[in-house]
Amino acid sequence: MSKDKDSGPGCPVPEFGHKHILLAHGGGGRLMHQLLKDVFLPAFDNPILNEGLDGAIIEKQAGRLAFSVDSYVVDPLFFPGGNIGTLAINGTVNDLAMCGARPLYLSAGFIIEEGFLIDTLSEVVSFMRRAADEAGVKIITGDTKVINKGKGSELFISTTGIGVIEHDLHISPKNLLPGDAIIINEDIGRHGIAVLAKRENLGFGTAIESDCAQLASTVMDLINSGINIHCLHDLTRGGLATALVEIAEISGRHIEISESAVPISEGVHSACEILGIDPFYVANEGGFIIFIPEKEAERTLYILRTKNNWSKAAIIGRVTEKISGVATRRGILGAQHLIDMFSGEQLPRIC
Amino acid sequence: MSKDKDSGPGCPVPEFGHKHILLAHGGGGRLMHQLLKDVFLPAFDNPILNEGLDGAIIEKQAGRLAFSVDSYVVDPLFFPGGNIGTLAINGTVNDLAMCGARPLYLSAGFIIEEGFLIDTLSEVVSFMRRAADEAGVKIITGDTKVINKGKGSELFISTTGIGVIEHDLHISPKNLLPGDAIIINEDIGRHGIAVLAKRENLGFGTAIESDCAQLASTVMDLINSGINIHCLHDLTRGGLATALVEIAEISGRHIEISESAVPISEGVHSACEILGIDPFYVANEGGFIIFIPEKEAERTLYILRTKNNWSKAAIIGRVTEKISGVATRRGILGAQHLIDMFSGEQLPRIC
Repeated sequence: MSKDKDSGPGCPVPEFGHKHILLAHGGGGRLMHQLLKDVFLPAFDNPILNEGLDGAIIEKQAGRLAFSVDSYVVDPLFFPGGNIGTLAINGTVNDLAMCGARPLYLSAGFIIEEGFLIDTLSEVVSFMRRAADEAGVKIITGDTKVINKGKGSELFISTTGIGVIEHDLHISPKNLLPGDAIIINEDIGRHGIAVLAKRENLGFGTAIESDCAQLASTVMDLINSGINIHCLHDLTRGGLATALVEIAEISGRHIEISESAVPISEGVHSACEILGIDPFYVANEGGFIIFIPEKEAERTLYILRTKNNWSKAAIIGRVTEKISGVATRRGILGAQHLIDMFSGEQLPRIC
Repeated sequence: MSKDKDSGPGCPVPEFGHKHILLAHGGGGRLMHQLLKDVFLPAFDNPILNEGLDGAIIEKQAGRLAFSVDSYVVDPLFFPGGNIGTLAINGTVNDLAMCGARPLYLSAGFIIEEGFLIDTLSEVVSFMRRAADEAGVKIITGDTKVINKGKGSELFISTTGIGVIEHDLHISPKNLLPGDAIIINEDIGRHGIAVLAKRENLGFGTAIESDCAQLASTVMDLINSGINIHCLHDLTRGGLATALVEIAEISGRHIEISESAVPISEGVHSACEILGIDPFYVANEGGFIIFIPEKEAERTLYILRTKNNWSKAAIIGRVTEKISGVATRRGILGAQHLIDMFSGEQLPRIC
């Protein structure tokens, strides 16, 4: 008896085998350690993480480093073609890839609502491990917090990535040159429509799946093939249109794209028509654009299509001679329209 | 008219000057860019962040790197002696310091509940900048997401840090040796009690303030003075007791502390008595313990007390010859008691 009392005033004998997350799982005590041992450590298992330190120690790197963070709050957590776990890995891996970096390590912070199912957490975590393996990254440090139960069972994940830059390219919107070709790797709009359809229980003719994918190996292939990349940008929140506006504004250059050149599936096209939304603004999770000198465009397309299975890769536009800081889209009838950002997004909580 | 229509179907003319966070502030469009320009960029202002890339590029580092993440979900956001902003910087800076690393850069991910006051966000962000300056770190990349309004206005912050290790010490619980002295830098329990008192509107005789502080400069001073540090551990969630159990379990060694040697203020002592909680388990945000060879204990105390203003620094125990993997506390009457972890924590949502 006295031993139990000595372990702390009022301290109950720890009970494990819970099915739901309790506030106590975020308290730093036995239950949190048990959650780490049961869920996170076996899934992410690697020597650096297994050291069990508050921070992770990594070896000296032979290059500049890229460092990027993203928080994931997608609703619903599981959707056709992906889930919050794959999103949390691929999204941050892709941010590093867009800097031209080879992704190495990730940290993962979990904010879990009290009452969340531990089995669901395990499932998310196993998807994270699978996506990390595919992208060649390791999750080496993490953190778990539990928040009081609100109106639904929710999970938020923040991942931060470190990558190494092993080349001398300066990949940035500031690097755009007149005549640059703009290439997209795939058709647009699938992620946003897939999440929305699942959340709102909308049935479209064909099931649309998220395009969630890691882009690091594609970018590494382009760099290793000596493609002189001027700028890269993923097409997440705000979609293709917002990416183009951002790049035009930072570069000060004029970007012109041809609407009919942008690949879009029949399914996404009809869904957008039904919903009255513009696919150019819908989020993607595996789409990106590449700015390169025009003379390298064909070789870039070849690498994308044949080596990386981006069969729909296409040239969608170019950087003109004008200094304007705006992006325009040319419609099928030939008229030029200014592209602007929306105030917010057409569809919230999709990444 | 046609120009407005061209900016996207149904796209309203952007309106700024909002007082509260809208879902649209997390949508990747104009409002989000405005929030970055109005709130985050001026506060964190530095050349790497100002590049405006999805990820931040940092120079090559001349040493191993430490990498650590922490999420902050404290309730209330402001409490005596600190707030979620200072906590989010100091907590991650301290995790790096506990690895013996000099903190360099931080990422910051914000998850903001719809309806949150933008003025309050600005206030938090300015506290973050101040804490970052004190710790000598820069916030170089970030992310903002907005979640639907639930039962209260909440803000969660995840920070990830990168630090460089410029020495050959291997600081880890695995490095403990029999005879090591254990030193604490300050009195325990202030953070947890300060947050609890504010949240629950408890009035204790004297106002107790959080001990929230950055520990990087102290750790760098110890390392630069040639102190042969075996292990460092901060005393956050779960407090001193949980830290001791963790270190004992990982090292396999026997750790013995003397209760009467652990500094504790009169205010925290009485508050804990009234609440019936054990101060050894209460979270600290500026407290840490140091394991060093006994012969370096006096010099360590001298550095803590005189160079770093830790006037209450004290030797609280030692590592014995036994191989047991447990920690014990010796009471005032001389009896040894086993220290165990709680199941959760006595006080949730305090960091």
